[in-house]
Amino acid sequence: MNGAEACLSTLVNAGVSVCFTNPGTTEMGFVAAFDKLAGMRPVLTLFEGVAAGAADGYARMVGRPAATLLHLGPGFANGLANFHNARRAQVPMINLVGDHATYHRQFDAPLNSEIELLACNVSGWVRSSASAAELPVDTADAVAAACAPPGQLATLIIPAEATWSAAAPVNAPVLPVAEQPSREAVDAAATALQSGRAGLLLAGDALLADNLKVAGAIAQQTGARLYCETFARRLERGAGRVPVARLPYFPEAVAGELADLEHLILVGARRPVSFFAYPDQASDLVPSACQVWELASEAHDLSIALAWLADTVAADPTRVAAGTPDPPGAPRGALTPETLAAAVSLVLPEGAIVSDEANTGGLAGFPLTVAAAPHDWLFLTGGSIGQGLPVATGAAVACPDRKVLALQADGGGAYTVQALWTQARENLDVTTVIYANRQYRILGVEYQRLTDQSPGPRAMDLIDIDRPTLDWVAIAGGFGVPAVRSDTAEDFQRQLANALAEPGPRLIEAVL
Amino acid sequence: MNGAEACLSTLVNAGVSVCFTNPGTTEMGFVAAFDKLAGMRPVLTLFEGVAAGAADGYARMVGRPAATLLHLGPGFANGLANFHNARRAQVPMINLVGDHATYHRQFDAPLNSEIELLACNVSGWVRSSASAAELPVDTADAVAAACAPPGQLATLIIPAEATWSAAAPVNAPVLPVAEQPSREAVDAAATALQSGRAGLLLAGDALLADNLKVAGAIAQQTGARLYCETFARRLERGAGRVPVARLPYFPEAVAGELADLEHLILVGARRPVSFFAYPDQASDLVPSACQVWELASEAHDLSIALAWLADTVAADPTRVAAGTPDPPGAPRGALTPETLAAAVSLVLPEGAIVSDEANTGGLAGFPLTVAAAPHDWLFLTGGSIGQGLPVATGAAVACPDRKVLALQADGGGAYTVQALWTQARENLDVTTVIYANRQYRILGVEYQRLTDQSPGPRAMDLIDIDRPTLDWVAIAGGFGVPAVRSDTAEDFQRQLANALAEPGPRLIEAVL
Repeated sequence: MNGAEACLSTLVNAGVSVCFTNPGTTEMGFVAAFDKLAGMRPVLTLFEGVAAGAADGYARMVGRPAATLLHLGPGFANGLANFHNARRAQVPMINLVGDHATYHRQFDAPLNSEIELLACNVSGWVRSSASAAELPVDTADAVAAACAPPGQLATLIIPAEATWSAAAPVNAPVLPVAEQPSREAVDAAATALQSGRAGLLLAGDALLADNLKVAGAIAQQTGARLYCETFARRLERGAGRVPVARLPYFPEAVAGELADLEHLILVGARRPVSFFAYPDQASDLVPSACQVWELASEAHDLSIALAWLADTVAADPTRVAAGTPDPPGAPRGALTPETLAAAVSLVLPEGAIVSDEANTGGLAGFPLTVAAAPHDWLFLTGGSIGQGLPVATGAAVACPDRKVLALQADGGGAYTVQALWTQARENLDVTTVIYANRQYRILGVEYQRLTDQSPGPRAMDLIDIDRPTLDWVAIAGGFGVPAVRSDTAEDFQRQLANALAEPGPRLIEAVL
Repeated sequence: MNGAEACLSTLVNAGVSVCFTNPGTTEMGFVAAFDKLAGMRPVLTLFEGVAAGAADGYARMVGRPAATLLHLGPGFANGLANFHNARRAQVPMINLVGDHATYHRQFDAPLNSEIELLACNVSGWVRSSASAAELPVDTADAVAAACAPPGQLATLIIPAEATWSAAAPVNAPVLPVAEQPSREAVDAAATALQSGRAGLLLAGDALLADNLKVAGAIAQQTGARLYCETFARRLERGAGRVPVARLPYFPEAVAGELADLEHLILVGARRPVSFFAYPDQASDLVPSACQVWELASEAHDLSIALAWLADTVAADPTRVAAGTPDPPGAPRGALTPETLAAAVSLVLPEGAIVSDEANTGGLAGFPLTVAAAPHDWLFLTGGSIGQGLPVATGAAVACPDRKVLALQADGGGAYTVQALWTQARENLDVTTVIYANRQYRILGVEYQRLTDQSPGPRAMDLIDIDRPTLDWVAIAGGFGVPAVRSDTAEDFQRQLANALAEPGPRLIEAVL
């Protein structure tokens, strides 16, 4: 067995069974190894940004890492923006990066670069394997590092000769488990909850349905409000589940939402800050009179933290009132973010996974889908656009029995449009809705906020993307995904229901 | 005037007049500034990899830097692979990267990252501006740094508040000039040339027509052979120009080509090394009996170096025999890399610029276009695929009076396909030919080289990209570029002539 085979074998031993990739010459040993190892499924992408986002979406849904396999520094670089998003999502992921043979690096051939320097930007763990003999142990270490709670990117750089030479796989590593929270933190949070207007800000696994039920019982017992971060990793929501209020995007709206709180309790979440700085606005969004308490950090076991807190305040999760919001009426007339969201709410099948990079269109529509059948909602965690279609792709690989709906702004969709091809190739059950407003609308909003004026013609030229109009039906068809265009609410609802009823990928260009 | 306006104004003072961009909120001050400054042309791209490659193509053709304007670390990261290629092309380029306000960075908002750590991977010069007052001087320093011979990437990180606050532009910086070579190096090269079988390996500006004429005179006088690097920045070639032999791609072929040389003289070039390492093959490709001499390094003035050398060996550039190779016959039958190249050779208009990322298809076809009308040939300098369409885009912005032909492999074309949209938006005279062999053919070749076997089914699944077939006519149309498909040599020649005769972008999917 050579190093590449031993590396993949070690991954399989550790339960890693999917590898999103675009390999090159330095990864040729891996390409050959895939043929010999039944337990590892390679999934080809036409661009590494797709592989990076797909590994993120996969991990969000199964809680275990996928691998990526990438071609030297530039291959890693092409995935970097979605690695950034994945780092913010705190998912486990293992990146295998082929490098030149160690003895070849000194010659600084054209593809040579300092891969470690790139990798450390987004990885919690980076190592360059010294030889084939050490590669399997390094691989097992990478898995353990990736799975350190709450999850992080582990990047293993593999010189070419380590893939050629002889090696033997090793057993699965012992995976680290999340720490318990401190009793003092639980008691402090309980005291805070009982002494004034309080809010719980939830993140990570605290947003899964079972944990939300516990949080809901705490809220019911104490009157606390439940919030989730604006861009969470994964939120289980919909009819019958405990709802949480999503923090708004703009800083003045967050500050307004939190204005009357006396206590803010962080449950795996960070202290809320503004997404961007603005002249004459604070970055820290906690009201000055509000005290902040950390029940548990992102590295703690949030299930235990919430259970202990419920116990301390005598809340009973078995008696929490489920959310029963009214569904929206059937949408009529023009297609807008709101009518589009109403249609989604009405036709979303139970167990669906929503990958949301609708951005400006999505912020308005999000609250309108709270009464939909129970589903998972995945957000744009790191703010770098081009995540939505890849995350949807990975989620569909992870959960072949569930429908995936990608709500995708057109600007961000153009970033990693190659994801559609992998969806077609793997016949993934993804329906993509392109929010075709034909502009970077957020830029127009931000221009107005900064200058208090409307953009002039050259500025508008950097905001509008309607010259030429992107024909998403043609583009999707070109990448192998059947597509339709829709511009009324009634038609959109019908088209969306049709697309979700069919197996395999579909795309709807929703003209807003 | 605010910092953003003063920064752009300083660039205009220094002769920088084009900015390839995809801006975001931290760059909003620049978006507003474009409206106020007539001298700076912003060119919007749908993905930063296009902006990076376009700035490269622009600089290759005019020898002056373009600017890019990018959105924080992830925006820079999306350009990184093509920045890598541009670094290898040794072009001048100025990257403006918006960052969070300095006081906002401590809060580690979702888009926060260590931009300097990213930028240093590809930049010869990196600075983070401390304030609006310092931004114009930093900008002038960036221009001077970018123009340090032979050219490099200068990256200026600009915190948001430096764009808002008051500032004043500064005058154009004094640009550094290339050093003269040493007389000793010239004499040593002359002696070598006259003492045995010698070759000149040319790179950088040595490959421009006037310098090639001098090199041709030296070769005529001394019997030396003329070589160019496999992946050069820009080669002026075609009928009437002095031809050079391009070094082959695979190491054994390079070694074979150089086998009988006694002296290899580097003219701005590096010692030839293998692109990749292979088991049991040397990385250094200079024959053991061959002595290597450096006439001039990449930072030297190569015109002077060649002129002095010509003078020393009594070569007369005014009497050099021009290349008069026979043009190929009109191609017939199946479309292959060779028949495609013959068609290109016959219809390429004088003054055309060829952006070549045809990869396996291009290596075979390249020699067949040597008799075409005089033209420029731009290569994939850093080996990271996805450069060809962006470089063509930037070259067309640089040279609006010349035709640009992009010879693009399908695999690499899918990487930065968004370039087509910018070509349509700016009505650029680019004709793209997609080499649709529907596989990463180089991977099949490399698989065979490594394993001495044919790929098995799972390996083939990482080499073939024909499931589903990319429909380039649909994709190009979706991005606004009219396209046709062609699968015979005769039809292709006609379609190519038609496309080149029309103004504006066109695409031909050449089914190989």
